[in-house]
Formats: sequence, C-alpha cells, structure tokens
Amino acid sequence: MASSEAIPKKYKAIVYDKPGTISTKIEELDMPEPGPGEVLINLTHSGVCHSDMGVMMNSWAMLPFPTQPGQVGGHEGVGKIVKMGPGTQQAGVKEGQRVGIKWMAGICEACEACRAGHDAMCFSGKISGYYTPGTFQQYVLSPANYVTPIPDGLDSASAAPMLCAGVTVYSALRKSAAESGNWVAILGAGGGLGHLAVQFSARAIGHRVIGIDHSSKKDLVLSSGAEHFVPIDGTDSVADAVKALTGGLGAHAVLVLTANNAAYASCVELLRFGGRVCVVGIPEGEPVPIASALPQVLVAKAISIHGIAVGNRREAIETLEFAARGIVKTHYRVEKMEKLTDVFREMWEGKLKGRVVLDLES
Amino acid sequence: MASSEAIPKKYKAIVYDKPGTISTKIEELDMPEPGPGEVLINLTHSGVCHSDMGVMMNSWAMLPFPTQPGQVGGHEGVGKIVKMGPGTQQAGVKEGQRVGIKWMAGICEACEACRAGHDAMCFSGKISGYYTPGTFQQYVLSPANYVTPIPDGLDSASAAPMLCAGVTVYSALRKSAAESGNWVAILGAGGGLGHLAVQFSARAIGHRVIGIDHSSKKDLVLSSGAEHFVPIDGTDSVADAVKALTGGLGAHAVLVLTANNAAYASCVELLRFGGRVCVVGIPEGEPVPIASALPQVLVAKAISIHGIAVGNRREAIETLEFAARGIVKTHYRVEKMEKLTDVFREMWEGKLKGRVVLDLES
Amino acid sequence: MASSEAIPKKYKAIVYDKPGTISTKIEELDMPEPGPGEVLINLTHSGVCHSDMGVMMNSWAMLPFPTQPGQVGGHEGVGKIVKMGPGTQQAGVKEGQRVGIKWMAGICEACEACRAGHDAMCFSGKISGYYTPGTFQQYVLSPANYVTPIPDGLDSASAAPMLCAGVTVYSALRKSAAESGNWVAILGAGGGLGHLAVQFSARAIGHRVIGIDHSSKKDLVLSSGAEHFVPIDGTDSVADAVKALTGGLGAHAVLVLTANNAAYASCVELLRFGGRVCVVGIPEGEPVPIASALPQVLVAKAISIHGIAVGNRREAIETLEFAARGIVKTHYRVEKMEKLTDVFREMWEGKLKGRVVLDLES
Amino acid sequence: MASSEAIPKKYKAIVYDKPGTISTKIEELDMPEPGPGEVLINLTHSGVCHSDMGVMMNSWAMLPFPTQPGQVGGHEGVGKIVKMGPGTQQAGVKEGQRVGIKWMAGICEACEACRAGHDAMCFSGKISGYYTPGTFQQYVLSPANYVTPIPDGLDSASAAPMLCAGVTVYSALRKSAAESGNWVAILGAGGGLGHLAVQFSARAIGHRVIGIDHSSKKDLVLSSGAEHFVPIDGTDSVADAVKALTGGLGAHAVLVLTANNAAYASCVELLRFGGRVCVVGIPEGEPVPIASALPQVLVAKAISIHGIAVGNRREAIETLEFAARGIVKTHYRVEKMEKLTDVFREMWEGKLKGRVVLDLES
Repeated sequence: MASSEAIPKKYKAIVYDKPGTISTKIEELDMPEPGPGEVLINLTHSGVCHSDMGVMMNSWAMLPFPTQPGQVGGHEGVGKIVKMGPGTQQAGVKEGQRVGIKWMAGICEACEACRAGHDAMCFSGKISGYYTPGTFQQYVLSPANYVTPIPDGLDSASAAPMLCAGVTVYSALRKSAAESGNWVAILGAGGGLGHLAVQFSARAIGHRVIGIDHSSKKDLVLSSGAEHFVPIDGTDSVADAVKALTGGLGAHAVLVLTANNAAYASCVELLRFGGRVCVVGIPEGEPVPIASALPQVLVAKAISIHGIAVGNRREAIETLEFAARGIVKTHYRVEKMEKLTDVFREMWEGKLKGRVVLDLES
Repeated sequence: MASSEAIPKKYKAIVYDKPGTISTKIEELDMPEPGPGEVLINLTHSGVCHSDMGVMMNSWAMLPFPTQPGQVGGHEGVGKIVKMGPGTQQAGVKEGQRVGIKWMAGICEACEACRAGHDAMCFSGKISGYYTPGTFQQYVLSPANYVTPIPDGLDSASAAPMLCAGVTVYSALRKSAAESGNWVAILGAGGGLGHLAVQFSARAIGHRVIGIDHSSKKDLVLSSGAEHFVPIDGTDSVADAVKALTGGLGAHAVLVLTANNAAYASCVELLRFGGRVCVVGIPEGEPVPIASALPQVLVAKAISIHGIAVGNRREAIETLEFAARGIVKTHYRVEKMEKLTDVFREMWEGKLKGRVVLDLES
Repeated sequence: MASSEAIPKKYKAIVYDKPGTISTKIEELDMPEPGPGEVLINLTHSGVCHSDMGVMMNSWAMLPFPTQPGQVGGHEGVGKIVKMGPGTQQAGVKEGQRVGIKWMAGICEACEACRAGHDAMCFSGKISGYYTPGTFQQYVLSPANYVTPIPDGLDSASAAPMLCAGVTVYSALRKSAAESGNWVAILGAGGGLGHLAVQFSARAIGHRVIGIDHSSKKDLVLSSGAEHFVPIDGTDSVADAVKALTGGLGAHAVLVLTANNAAYASCVELLRFGGRVCVVGIPEGEPVPIASALPQVLVAKAISIHGIAVGNRREAIETLEFAARGIVKTHYRVEKMEKLTDVFREMWEGKLKGRVVLDLES
Repeated sequence: MASSEAIPKKYKAIVYDKPGTISTKIEELDMPEPGPGEVLINLTHSGVCHSDMGVMMNSWAMLPFPTQPGQVGGHEGVGKIVKMGPGTQQAGVKEGQRVGIKWMAGICEACEACRAGHDAMCFSGKISGYYTPGTFQQYVLSPANYVTPIPDGLDSASAAPMLCAGVTVYSALRKSAAESGNWVAILGAGGGLGHLAVQFSARAIGHRVIGIDHSSKKDLVLSSGAEHFVPIDGTDSVADAVKALTGGLGAHAVLVLTANNAAYASCVELLRFGGRVCVVGIPEGEPVPIASALPQVLVAKAISIHGIAVGNRREAIETLEFAARGIVKTHYRVEKMEKLTDVFREMWEGKLKGRVVLDLES
C-alpha cells in the first residue's frame, strides 16, 4: 500500500454556494484522509442527474433539511482508488482499482433494510452529494466495501450515468417480474431514464418493448430496441393502442418513468390481468394519488402497483456488466467542471438533451 | 355408476323474482341432466354472501348486465354428487362424494388466465348465481373437474362459507408475501371476512396479527388470534399505534377488508419499507383512487399495492384443509330457505351479525 | 361448425407392429369421432423423438407396461382441427385452427399435480403414442382444451419438434432460475436438445452460455449463440475451463442434456455457490446415483439439483412464441411416413444427425 | 461511551492445547482492544456444538488447515458489549447491549456471496473458533455490524444454541419452500438439531410435521409438535409409512438432519412430486453420493435436492424472535468452563443428551 502516486494537498470541488438558486462555484479544498474502513478515490468523471438539481434548488420535498451552502453535490462518480484507510484489507478492492460512487454514499450493513437488500432504505443511509460531499469534486472518501467496481472495457465517462439512471431502470425491470418474451410498456421511453430502460428491457432481458412518448422521440425509442412505438400525441387511446399490439390483452408490466400525473392516470389500463405497474417517475408539486389506483379495477384484474427505490449494490454490478458487454449504452455529452451552472440552467429550462458527464480532470 | 338414490323429477330453488329489490321466491324446478364433463350435485347447504345481495340488487358496478328475473343466486354451496355425466371418469371425484361450488362456477382451463392460475380472470369464466343457476337450490350442475372436494371431518354447514369468504382471505394472505413471524395489520378485522382472516393469519400461517376495527369488535378479534387490537374509534392515529406495536417500523403487510375509502386513505402509512397493501374490500359507489397511493411515498418506502381476486381451486382446497383440522372456524347461524329474503333485508340494513348458512333440506 | 371439408372414412397411420424390435408398418384405420370435450385433428407433421424409440423398443424403464402391437406412436404432432366434439365451445380453439399435440396427450385438470402446473405428473395423465394413439398418423383425437395453438408465422414442420424438445429445454432454463446476464453451462450443447437449449438460453433469455460437447460440435454450438465452447475431448478439466471463463467462480446453472453418467459426475463442480444443476438427460441402463451429489459439497456451496420434467401447456405456448418470432430454430429434415423404420434404425445406431419431421400428407 | 464498567487486563479462555485429541485447557489471556469497526464483548455463555469437536479433533474434512495449538474454540456466544471501537457509530448496536456471535465471525459485506445473502460463503469469511478466537472465553472481539442483537425476554443461556443449531434448521425450513399446512418429514427429528427443527416447523411456520427417528425419541419428537412419529426401528418401510400419513403422496419436503448415508439413501422416496430434499447432516468419513439422487427418479417426480448452508444474519434475528416469543425452546444443560473436556468426551462417545451451554462467568 505504498503511496505510488503523489496525492496533492489541495484539489478542486464544485460547491452549491447559494442553495435554492442555480449557482455553483469551484473551490479548492483540503485533501481528506481515509478513516477506518474508508478509501480515498481520485474521481475523473461524474454524471449530472435531475436529483442533483433538486438538492441544489431545495425543490425536492422528500429531503429532510435544506441543503447547506458549501455542499459538494453529485452521485454518479467514477475514479481510481489512491489510498486505503485502516481495516480495508477484506473489502475486495485495492489501490489503483477503478470504482464508482452512487446514490447511496454508504449504508450501515446492519439494519433490517440492509439485511433485506433495500440499500436505499438503510436506516442510517447517506445520500451522496447531500449528506456527504458528493462526486462533483476530484477526490472523495467512501466506505471501502460499498464502492462499485468498474469492469474493464467500460470507459469511465460511460460508466458514470449507469451508476444512477442505469441502476434505477434495471432495478425497476427486475422488480417488474416480467419474464423474457413478456410485453413491457414504457411511459417516457425517450427520456434519460427511458432510452436506457428500453435497451435493458429489450436487449438485456429480452422483453418485447412498447415505447410510449412524444412523437419526436420515435427514432430514439425504436433504435434503442423497442418493438413498437406509440406516440402520446396523435393517439386517441394509448391503452387501446397497447392492447391492439398485444393480442387484445395489454402489457405484462408498465414502467412509469415520466414525472407527470397524467401518465399515472392511464397506466393501469395498459395492463393485462395480473400485470404490474412500476412507479419510478416522481411528479413535481403537491403529491396526488395515482388516479388509476381504483380498488375495483385492481381487484378485478389482479393488478399490482410497485414503488421502485434506487437499486442496490448487486444490481449496480449487474448493470455495469451489461454496459461493459456493450449491450446498453447511454447518450451523453462531456462538459468541463466550470460548465456545471450552465448545465443546471439548461436542465431547469427543460432544454437539456441526453445526459451530461463532467470531466473532473479538466 | 348405478343410480343408488332416487333422483326426483322436481326440486326446490330460490329465485330472484324482482331483481333490483329485496325479494326472493321459492320455486319448483325441473331436474336437470348432467351433460358431458358435468356432475349433478344434491346441495344441502349454501352460504349467503354480500356479493349475492349485489347481484340481486343490481347494485354492483362490475357486473356486465342486469340480473334476470328467475335467476337462482348463491355461490357457497355444499352437497353430494348424485350423478356423473359422460366423460367424467378422470375428474377425480365420484358419485356419493361431498363437494363444494364456489364463486367461479366453471373455467375454461385453456385461456392464458387459467394457465396462470388466475381462475377468477378466466376469459370465459362463469360466476355462480349470476351467469349460471347458483347454490340457493337443492340441485345444481357443475363441471366435474372444477368442484372442490370437502374433506372428511368438516361438516357441510361450516364448509359453505369457507368456499368464498375463507378462500378470499386465505388467498390474500398468500399474496401478501408475509412470512410466518411477520406483522400483518388487518383493517376490518372483526367483520365476516376479518374474523376469518385473523384466524388464518395468526393460526394457520403464524403471522403476528394486529386487528383494527371498531372497539365493539375487540373480543372477537382477540379471541380469533390477534396479538393486538387497535380500535379505530378512540385512537388518534392508527398508523402511530401500529408503529408503536411493531418496533417503530410498521407492519409487513396490510389487508384492507373493509369497503370504505377511509381505510384506503390510511393503509400505506401502516407499513414498513418494502411492505404490501392487499386490496380486498370494494367501496360502494363511484370508484375513488386509493388516497394513500402517492408515487412519492410508494417510491420512498418501496411499497406495493395488490388487487386480490378470489382464490383459485388450489387455494380452496388448502383453505378447507385448515378448516377440517379445526384451525379456522366461521361464526354463522343456520336458516331455512324461506328466510332468505329476511336475511337479505338484515344485510341491507347493516344489522346482520356473522354469516348465514341456508339449510337447503329444510 | 358445418363440416367444411370432407373427412374421409379411412386414413393412414404408422403402428409398431412388433414392439421390442425396430419395425413399423403403415395401416389404414377407421376415422374416429370426437367425444365430449374432444376435437379431431388432421395432422400434417410429426416430429420423431428418442422417447418414441424407447416406447417402440420397450427399452425405457419408466414405462409401466410393455407397448402393445398396433400402437400408434408419436408425440410432436401439428395439424388442423377438422371437427369439434360436444361441449367444446369454451375451449378457446375452433375448427380450422392449427394446433399441436405434445408429450402429454391429456391431463385431468383436477388433481394436485395439475393444480400445481405439473402437467407431466398428472395423476391420470396420458402419454401420447403410448397410452393413446399418437401423432404418427393423419388424424388424431385430443381434449379440446389441451391442444397447443400454433402461432401464425411458424410453419408446421418447424413447430413439431418445438412441442417436445423445445418445451423441455425451455422449461429447464426457466427452472434453472438463472437470470438474464447469468452464466449457464450446457453439457451436450451440440445435440438435438442442446442446440435448442443454447438458442433459448442465449437469444431468448439473455444468458451467457458456455456450450460443452465433443469438439466436432463446436461450430453448431457457437452459431447457436454460445459465448464460449469447451470441448470435452482435449480439455484436461472442464470444471477448470468453466471457472476460468467465469471469473473463477463457475456458472450460475448447469443443464445436463446428455444421457451419460460421466456428465453427472462432473456437473456440480462447474457451479458457483448457490448454483443449480438441471437434470434432463436420462442415462441408459441401471440407474446410478449422481456421482457429484455429495452432501459435503452441496452444503459447502449451497448447490441444488433439480429434476426437470417436460414443460406444461403454458411453457409450450411461450416456446412456440419464441420460435414464431424467429429467435429459435430447429435443425431438422423432412421424411415421408414410410421412412420411419429407417429413421429409427439410424437413431438406434447413433447415426442420426439433427431431428426428423415426418410429412404425414405424403 | 464512557467506560461504565472496569474492563480487566486479563481474562479466562479455553484453548485447544493438543488439537487432534480430546483436550482443552483454561488460560489467562491479555484483554484485546477493539480495532476500527469492532466491538469488545464480555461473553457470559457459549453453546458447545459438534462442529467445535470437529475443529478440535481435526476430523472435519472441509477445513483447509489443521487447528493450531492455543486456538480458542466456540461459535455460539452471548454477552454484552463493553467497548466500541472507532467507526462503529452506525452499526446499530451500543455499549451495554446483549449480542451474539455465531458460526461466521465476520463477513466482508462486499463479495458476490455477501451481496446475495450467502453469509456462509463469503469469499473472506472467518469461522468463529477456527480462523478467529471463538466464544469459549470471557471476552471476544467482533465486527460491530455483524453481531446478532439478543431480544429482551430471551435469557442468554437459551439464546446461545439458537445462534447455530436454531439458525441452521430455521434456514433449512425456509429453503424447503414448504408452506404453512404442507407436510414436512424430518429425518433425525429427536436430535439436537431435530427437536428444534420440529418446533420451528410445526409451531413457528405451521407445517404438518412427521418426525422420524429411533423409537426412543418418540416422546421428545411428539412433545416438540410433530403430528406423527415414525420409528426407524420397527418400521418396514419409512417411505410407505410417510405416504400412508400423507394421503398416499408423500411429504412436500424432507429435512435430512442425521449424519448418515442411510438416511440419504431413502430421503427421495419420502417425497411427493415437486418435493424438496434439504441436505443438512454431513456424514462422517469419505464423501459418498446421495444414493437416492437418481436422474430417472428426480426427473419423473420433479424432485430437487438442496444443500443448506448455515443461515445468515437476517435468519439469525428471525430465529431469536421466535425463541424470545417462547415458540421454540432448546433442551440444554449448563456446565462450568472446566467441564468442557468432559463434555467433548461425552460427545465423542455418543453419550451426550441434548445440548450443553457453558457458563463463562463460572
């Protein structure tokens, strides 16, 4: 564990200097020392996710306290371990190895949620970039046994968005219980989550995918592997269209990836008996009940509705394996650190196409 | 297959003479002949279920056409096979055997729903006492391979309500995925379905049951096996009470057996992370979304909501086995056929305590 | 249901005239009439399976009585319904429809095995071509609700072998519990079952397949979709080879499709912790315990070993859907009815390459 | 975290002074200091298990190296945390809390086996009392997040054997997939594992238990909750007896808890179609294949055979909950530390009745 590379005393990080507004600032921070069970990682890339904007803007109702000025955001980071803290011999990683940081910065490994594989619900879980300094910085600390190894053959920029968007849709598809050959309808199939969900569903698991989105997304959805595309504009009844494509019965599962209540109002109708709605997208504003969650209909068709939390470490590793094999690819562009405020502005104004990955070596 | 007993030419049946009103009439009907694959059953008992009233009153929105005058109702019948139709050699039953009729009078055994074990969703399924002449009569025809054998040691009157109420709650408990030792909260624990659900949950499967109902039901719920009782009257927050009883976490599963929207508005709050709501009770009137089905909450706690259709044949047989072993018992009173109108009137006015079983030999 | 086509009085069938020897004979039989719940099917194609030879030769120890002279064999038949018997209105099929006959000619739909979806274990189940006249004939009777609909777009000759070989390997893969992206090792990957298993595993379900067989089968196995091929000749240790290809851990599941005890002696070693052996191939001769089924090893690695019976109707339908979509293809050649004895002789002598489908219209 | 109690500088431990022989010796050891992520536990009780004898005697073939002189054995320890090491704030335990040590002294939480919940197969897992100083001592170190909290209401002596014997049989029963109301046959029902398995099966999960053992164990087995007892002495065919008790079909699952090959030779015959053998007992001597693991039979009845490793932390907690509720009780006697050699001698000679718990405060 001899220090093979010189670790500088200072490094660059992007902080939220005025939480509640679109504003970020690059600062020089002191290099931290890995404590017991921790590793120090030299990050090279970090994805930028809508949830980061929610943290910066204090606009996300689920978070328990306002974001503090000086918070380093980010939760899709990739880099190389440069120093191992004490007691990390059996964590399965070593100095020099490429690893990733994801939504949960660390979990306790001891509570009932951890024991059940529900990482996101760990009773002492810490969200990266909100509870802890996140991945918009050149160095980060992490529990040694909670990093996600990055497989060879997957470049770091491509790996970054897989650690959150990829894991989320992969986990949703697993929880959909849809088997290879089953029909899966995806609401929001052309979005940041959607285009990944279509690929995982059609190419990794072998579902038959019906992508549903605005007609402008048709090419992206079909080229991602969907067998059919149903435009929400210009279709009288999306439910009727889905039934017509599935022998009159409807899909086996529906993924709702869009953050709007209208999608939830129709989702149950898209399903055959015994089908599953997977709830991923969170509408903005005051929470509203899922309009199609009618006891009468759920009972008559034996439908179930499943809230999907972000995936766990095991699912993260499986997600990256599919990406490393070239089965699933993210559409993204690379930006320098100083561009993050601009990126958030684009995102806020709804103008952002695809995902952005920050080059932290810039 | 020699006709051991004389089968009369005529027999007594109770018909809905004026559907849409509380009115039944006893008529003499001609004895039917079992067709291919059918058996003729001499019924001795039939339970009376709320769904029968819904059929009689045309008050149940899920049914596709108005009930016809002259319809024989009922779907919880028990009796003895007295004649086997052609082609019934391998149906696994024989003349003289006691068998039961349940909600589905017959299924096609061929459609996708049948192949998946979703009897209630059979594409050509027939509801007993609505599509076909039901169990409020002394003789009934049934597909030979769809009757439910009644185990020795379970008397026919006790078996009758198990065939619908019992199967429904047993199926719900199976679909709850709650394991032995897990906490199950039951909304409506003191009702007709509820007191059976408490027994199946606590005594058959070994759940730890929290019964929730009006305080007047406390003794029934606790004597049915609940570990705790939470009265809805006089409890500030049922959710807080359930959490306090379960180490602060909430139940693993909630069964909603009451037919009111208020129960649905609170059910999700009673659960721990990863918990399941089992939807059984159907509120009257215009369907209203489940008020606690908020995407934000379902995602944050990985909650799922499951519509529970009536159980299948396999579950019916398992239900009866538990009853035959004395583990689960129904509270019921026996009435003669001519009392059915009075029974429906009590039911309509909300005065009926426990379940009623008709003595069809009276 | 007017008789649209003239049904002849007589038709051609192939019978085992001297069971115990390789001998078949074409006979003229009287046209049967469909009884209650039955349909009459005009068969155009039938696959020829090793199990047929076992029935003809009386060499298969599992069968309870010797095959009778005059028995019509065969259990992979495809044809068109030409007449519906009484009581078949709700069986989900109609006159003129193409349907298939498979290993089980019919099941009772009532016993515990049927209720659990274990078609092959039906307490009154009838094996086609042994208990009942099979598919080596131009017309056959079948229970209306047990035929397998043939999807449009799949020609009848290609469908025939899917009804037994295809269903068997598909069912084994489902029961392997291996998920998309998991490693599956297939012993006998280049055989009649094997080349189908590789396709289903790699292309339909998305497993990563390691095909294991004699080096002469390498091209077939790789072109069927295997990611790696391990020759049994010229490999010191197949287990070591499999571990080297799977990051040192071994496969998640192993399918044993070969009928030899040596494969069973090594199968457990190919697995990682928690892995599953799927037992399909039945060695000839006196039964011998699976040599690698050592309590010490099964416990130390949490390995399980699963006997795989032939799939059920639901799996048959799913199998045919994958075939109709062109994802899985059988290698077969077509022969006339009078060639069946020659085909069995080739099979007996181990010279048969690929599968044979009889043209019953010849 | 002020040191509430004085921790002595020295304490008593029992070591294997001459591994390979029945010999233990009490020594004074220096008090260790908890490192990062560790806690120091003042043990009051430790169960004595057959596996401990295997470690002491070097007679257990699965262990990779000979036991070293001076090794402290034991893996069923209960005591109180007296000191928290650095970095243990979020481990969910605190000073003064009662906790248990079990078979695995610690796991990495990072490898594929850990992520899959297979604690016993952790790639860097350490067996207590062999790799690490075990529980035959007054103080022990443990990873803070891997201890098992002992619930209030369960005394420490009773808890000790639950941490290994109890967890093992509970885990086996879960993996048997037998549902409440199903038949479970237990081979070795009157032994140390067996009498616990009968209680968990019958009383905690609600199985119908058939206990199988020597006739001298009849009373213990029946009083533990078995519905039937089948003596291995004086029964012509145990399989026939089990079938007669289960409607002719056989059990849904069989647990083999005895360490002899004869039990394995008969276990498959006790099962109905689709049944499961759970392999727990490890026969002594050269490993021998399970004699009833015949491909022909496994296929014909769709039987599976499952190696059961020791349970994980989650199962340990569930096991202790059932014990704390009084549903399951161990038969044990308490002995002083200096008696351990005598206890091992009794065990070696096959004279030990029930389990022994050491009082470490003696």
